[in-house]
Amino acid sequence: MSYRHVAIIGLGLIGGSIGLAVREDLPDTKTTGWDIDPAVRRRARERGLTDTVCEDAGEAVRGADLVILCVPVGAMPAAAAAIAADLSPECVVSDVGSSKRTITDMLVDALPGFTVIPAHPVAGTEHSGPDAGFSMLFHQRWCIVTPPADADRAQVARLVDFWESLGAMVETMDADHHDKVLAVTSHIPHLIAYTIVGTASDMETVTRSEVIKYSAGGFRDFTRIAASDPTMWRDVFLNNKDAVLEMLDTFLTDLALMREAIRAGDGQTMFDTFSRTRAIRRSIVALGQDDARPDFGRGDHK
Amino acid sequence: MSYRHVAIIGLGLIGGSIGLAVREDLPDTKTTGWDIDPAVRRRARERGLTDTVCEDAGEAVRGADLVILCVPVGAMPAAAAAIAADLSPECVVSDVGSSKRTITDMLVDALPGFTVIPAHPVAGTEHSGPDAGFSMLFHQRWCIVTPPADADRAQVARLVDFWESLGAMVETMDADHHDKVLAVTSHIPHLIAYTIVGTASDMETVTRSEVIKYSAGGFRDFTRIAASDPTMWRDVFLNNKDAVLEMLDTFLTDLALMREAIRAGDGQTMFDTFSRTRAIRRSIVALGQDDARPDFGRGDHK
Repeated sequence: MSYRHVAIIGLGLIGGSIGLAVREDLPDTKTTGWDIDPAVRRRARERGLTDTVCEDAGEAVRGADLVILCVPVGAMPAAAAAIAADLSPECVVSDVGSSKRTITDMLVDALPGFTVIPAHPVAGTEHSGPDAGFSMLFHQRWCIVTPPADADRAQVARLVDFWESLGAMVETMDADHHDKVLAVTSHIPHLIAYTIVGTASDMETVTRSEVIKYSAGGFRDFTRIAASDPTMWRDVFLNNKDAVLEMLDTFLTDLALMREAIRAGDGQTMFDTFSRTRAIRRSIVALGQDDARPDFGRGDHK
Repeated sequence: MSYRHVAIIGLGLIGGSIGLAVREDLPDTKTTGWDIDPAVRRRARERGLTDTVCEDAGEAVRGADLVILCVPVGAMPAAAAAIAADLSPECVVSDVGSSKRTITDMLVDALPGFTVIPAHPVAGTEHSGPDAGFSMLFHQRWCIVTPPADADRAQVARLVDFWESLGAMVETMDADHHDKVLAVTSHIPHLIAYTIVGTASDMETVTRSEVIKYSAGGFRDFTRIAASDPTMWRDVFLNNKDAVLEMLDTFLTDLALMREAIRAGDGQTMFDTFSRTRAIRRSIVALGQDDARPDFGRGDHK
């Protein structure tokens, strides 16, 4: 049974996309929204990201049976505090944060007596803010639900149904395992992309304008990810420190081996490493998790 | 004045694309081609990558006023040896290799008395082989020409014209500087992508199927680059060792600083680093070197 009233706190890329998707996929569900930034509320109202955009957080969540916090991980405590007094007793509080252990613990502490079921839709683009959202964002993307151990199974099933209604495929797992998986598939790739783009901007022997001009050789791919929201990503690394450091150290060990292969002119090690990786790409495309066209279909609009 | 007859040695992604582009953009120019692999020659003939696909390298270059070697860097010496006896005295020998210093020296040594003007079109996709080429590959992409210091200026201008006819923008620079620029914009990004995809495949706590499923969080972007041709990339790292190691060490220093920021919970350093990188992305898009649509326009074909 679908929710009657979904309240969305934070109306950026993800919050806005949820609002638009609910209107399209669950037309009987009412949506209310709020954002801390008045300019975002204004723009959200113009775009109609939720049926109503409220002027305060309490008003937005009043009467809602699902509240989704769509704010950067670091802004979650303030968002939880802003809604606590106005939540309906039967409501489920969820979120969309990219790290789950610290958020789960924080929300459970901050909202005693309420049902907290965190979630993480693995979807997004490099754009952010109230203009970035679109209703199809979650289609064919995974959403990971990380219920606390004692969560009510019917409530979990209802949240799973909700995300499936928006076109997502849903998996449930423990928050700690989520944090390890996402460290590999998302957090480390972002960290590396941000770092290499920074490195390339500050070279002594190669100018920034050369880096930009010749970026089609591979570099430009990294700049897309490195254009993601800085606040959101700072908070991810502050809140998933242990898993990120563990995976980063494994990567650094592997990179040191490749460095040594290059230094020693060991072509066989390079060839073997470079040959193993095509299979993964094929699986990702086969599972519908990436575009099969060469170069992501880039430039096909010309 | 355009070339009368262009011979293409190596009929993969780049060689095949040159053949198709010449037919479209320079219809008065004759093309011949050869590839060491009989299966590639057969497929090249079926697709008509060049007007004629020859059964031996000497036959392909006979009478040509431009010969372009489109083989992996490591196969260049053998390709040069295969054509040396049949080159016309007035012909220009060029190539498309991703590293330029070692190739330039090697070609000049291997082909005494001939005009050698190396070049590198900064264009490609993750696909390779005779089915991967298309005539538009060089449109709006840069081609870097790296003439030896004593090169004839009229001959250089003619090669520049040729690439411009295929839709490319052309810059000339010294081979050593090219190798530093490409180490940053192409070689290091490929090395990192290959390495992280390898790291992610071998995690103990996260399965390969989880990595594939949740790859939309960022990881899938790296898998595209890491699906590139292993032989080509092995040869790049064998032939541009010094510049790659220099840039890699700068990157490793920067990554160590980010690691320390994460360990120390230093949000300000992270935020500052993550905020600097959007401007580069904007410049790349503004210069037409990437697709402005979110997510590269991925999935827009649905």
